[in-house]
Amino acid sequence: MLSRREVLAGMAAAALFPHATGESRMDQRISVVTLGVRSLEAARRFYGDGLGWKAAFQNQEISFFQCGGMILALFPRDGLAEDMMADPATFGRAAISLGYNVREKNEVDPLLRRAVAAGAKILKPGRDASWGGYSGYFADPDGYAWEVAWNPQWRLAADGNIYVH
Amino acid sequence: MLSRREVLAGMAAAALFPHATGESRMDQRISVVTLGVRSLEAARRFYGDGLGWKAAFQNQEISFFQCGGMILALFPRDGLAEDMMADPATFGRAAISLGYNVREKNEVDPLLRRAVAAGAKILKPGRDASWGGYSGYFADPDGYAWEVAWNPQWRLAADGNIYVH
Repeated sequence: MLSRREVLAGMAAAALFPHATGESRMDQRISVVTLGVRSLEAARRFYGDGLGWKAAFQNQEISFFQCGGMILALFPRDGLAEDMMADPATFGRAAISLGYNVREKNEVDPLLRRAVAAGAKILKPGRDASWGGYSGYFADPDGYAWEVAWNPQWRLAADGNIYVH
Repeated sequence: MLSRREVLAGMAAAALFPHATGESRMDQRISVVTLGVRSLEAARRFYGDGLGWKAAFQNQEISFFQCGGMILALFPRDGLAEDMMADPATFGRAAISLGYNVREKNEVDPLLRRAVAAGAKILKPGRDASWGGYSGYFADPDGYAWEVAWNPQWRLAADGNIYVH
């Protein structure tokens, strides 16, 4: 049984050295989404020239786009494989979608058309969704799926942040 | 040649109906990252019980986690395939990493250990990176790669938002 003094000392230590307790906290956030791409040039053309995005930093190896409070990175697949110690031969089509939500239902189709003009392929044309909104999907030059969606149940703030409630 | 009146009418129409001009703007943001998972139960155990994340909404089909100003969704792979009109048999290992940046170098290893305790596999132990920081990778139960990184060149704000500059 610990004395009161030992308990208090332990609490103080936990406050000062949270990792010492084994309780390491992982907040709910994603800092970066890194897409492994076959051609950095082609991906930059799509997101840059095509969608009009401006890189906050880029060099011969990587591009970083500031996306609100997080970052989208474009990085060659082989470099990403090496960095995460994966065999690039094991890579396949990602079972992931990236969502881009819009304020009005009638913004979805024009954005899908813009993506196509930039070199995307339509995976699914815009249509009414079972969940009460409207959405369609395009694939970027590497096949990564983007869902352009209008979801009237979520709150899309002026700064582009989106909230479930 | 357009008259001044026609030009002004066109400008007014473009302001009122931006889509009519064909210029549809896609801001730099990602509203949602949806991970297609083999087992919704297992994925919920990992992110929920394991990492301590709380769903803002969930039902039998999907979980949504509010992550700063964006949303992480867990959704069964087959449902995602159907929604994006993809053949789930074409899915493979994603050439994508999700980054979680921390404030201090010494936060990386404890977080990797916490992920392992939650059921993750280490892809790469924490180590000094060529770009001046320190990072390691873990894979979630579906194999999605998370990089836990300390990057002293980026600004990690109090609210968890991260900025290249």
